[in-house]
Amino acid sequence: MTTQEALFKYTLRLGDNSIILAQRLCEWTSKGPFLEEDLALTNIALDIFGRGKSLLEYAARVENKGRNEDHLAFHRTDRQFTNNLICEQDNGDYAKSMIRQALIDCFDLMLYTELSKSKDETLVGIAAKSIKEITYHKRHSFSWVDRFGNGTEESHERAQKALNELWRFTGEFFEMEEADELLIKEGIAVDVKSFQAKWEEEIKALFLKANLTLPENVFMQTGGRKGIHTEHLAYLLAEMQALPRMYPDAKW
Amino acid sequence: MTTQEALFKYTLRLGDNSIILAQRLCEWTSKGPFLEEDLALTNIALDIFGRGKSLLEYAARVENKGRNEDHLAFHRTDRQFTNNLICEQDNGDYAKSMIRQALIDCFDLMLYTELSKSKDETLVGIAAKSIKEITYHKRHSFSWVDRFGNGTEESHERAQKALNELWRFTGEFFEMEEADELLIKEGIAVDVKSFQAKWEEEIKALFLKANLTLPENVFMQTGGRKGIHTEHLAYLLAEMQALPRMYPDAKW
Repeated sequence: MTTQEALFKYTLRLGDNSIILAQRLCEWTSKGPFLEEDLALTNIALDIFGRGKSLLEYAARVENKGRNEDHLAFHRTDRQFTNNLICEQDNGDYAKSMIRQALIDCFDLMLYTELSKSKDETLVGIAAKSIKEITYHKRHSFSWVDRFGNGTEESHERAQKALNELWRFTGEFFEMEEADELLIKEGIAVDVKSFQAKWEEEIKALFLKANLTLPENVFMQTGGRKGIHTEHLAYLLAEMQALPRMYPDAKW
Repeated sequence: MTTQEALFKYTLRLGDNSIILAQRLCEWTSKGPFLEEDLALTNIALDIFGRGKSLLEYAARVENKGRNEDHLAFHRTDRQFTNNLICEQDNGDYAKSMIRQALIDCFDLMLYTELSKSKDETLVGIAAKSIKEITYHKRHSFSWVDRFGNGTEESHERAQKALNELWRFTGEFFEMEEADELLIKEGIAVDVKSFQAKWEEEIKALFLKANLTLPENVFMQTGGRKGIHTEHLAYLLAEMQALPRMYPDAKW
């Protein structure tokens, strides 16, 4: 595997994580629990879409085969997407969406903080912008987890149920493969293992404060990196890609 | 409008009604309330798909522009579908699906019984096969309406709610337009007004027996014939068309 191939895979995966999550979050637009929150979440989704666009743009540039970010987003099948399974999980209720978001925000802030020290200037630029955004996203999702966990009996139960459902998708955060190893050696990619303990510590503290219990002895799900997804992704893509698939030659 | 144009419009609309309803019913496959019922409903969906296929095949033949039934089903946008709005409504709970089905089955049995007297041999053939199928479908949906209406308080409430929601889509059954008028004169199409009173009578009897109340003074929805649909259709098509849109040149 060449550095170019590894970098393509790496940026594609980061990009996939962003756009699939953003697409999910957009489903809340106009359906948020109240107006202020609806706007906040839509803005968060937009931040993440923006990051996904930059990453896929860069991936296409690295690949150098005439594809652009739109090709990558709208003309690949589910088996060609490499996002973590947690990003594609259905929104469920607001508790589930916020638990999912907190787990991801906590990871992403550490990931992009490390990535901002990369030797790759483009990734540094994307990371620098992302850190500011995710800092705010994380404050938002963490505060919701606390409110749900320490709220009513109903909100607590729903948050606990969501955590039980989603925890098995957190193992993928810390998977690494050949592309990662190669790029870490070159000082480009992030060694996610380096902050795994820190992530677990922060997450434990969050849920302890929220009076929620982390599930134990969970069998961690895997497959996203190899394009083996849960049933949710194909439906998400059918909707996300409907227009470009319908008009494949359309120009904006 | 020539007879050919009118016949294309007419068969296309009958075909659209069938495949959109069948696609909806298929969403229940593997999710039915119990195994026997799951199989029954899947078979019903398959009957209706078969009818839709025959009708679209014929529509394509009448149109004579090189399209086939797959083009018509999978490569038109929502604005080009002419099905009645009731067919695209979401399944909701089983009560809603069965109320929708009963309203449609009752209409379709009368429609295809009349159509079997058409001067168009192809339509007669399709109608003859459909009558047998719909007779069974109607027995099935009517018995469910009765069970829900006269069942528990919960089932009764759900059936009543579904009826309240769906009734406004029944006006479209009896709409006629230029193509109908022209084909009725030629002895090809069915004058749906001729059995409107009979349909209303049967439906009233059904709901009276099921202890359900027909809503009054409902503003009837319209638009399907002109391609103006409820929000549900575009999502249904995104899913139904995902594969052919993804691989537009694939051969089976």
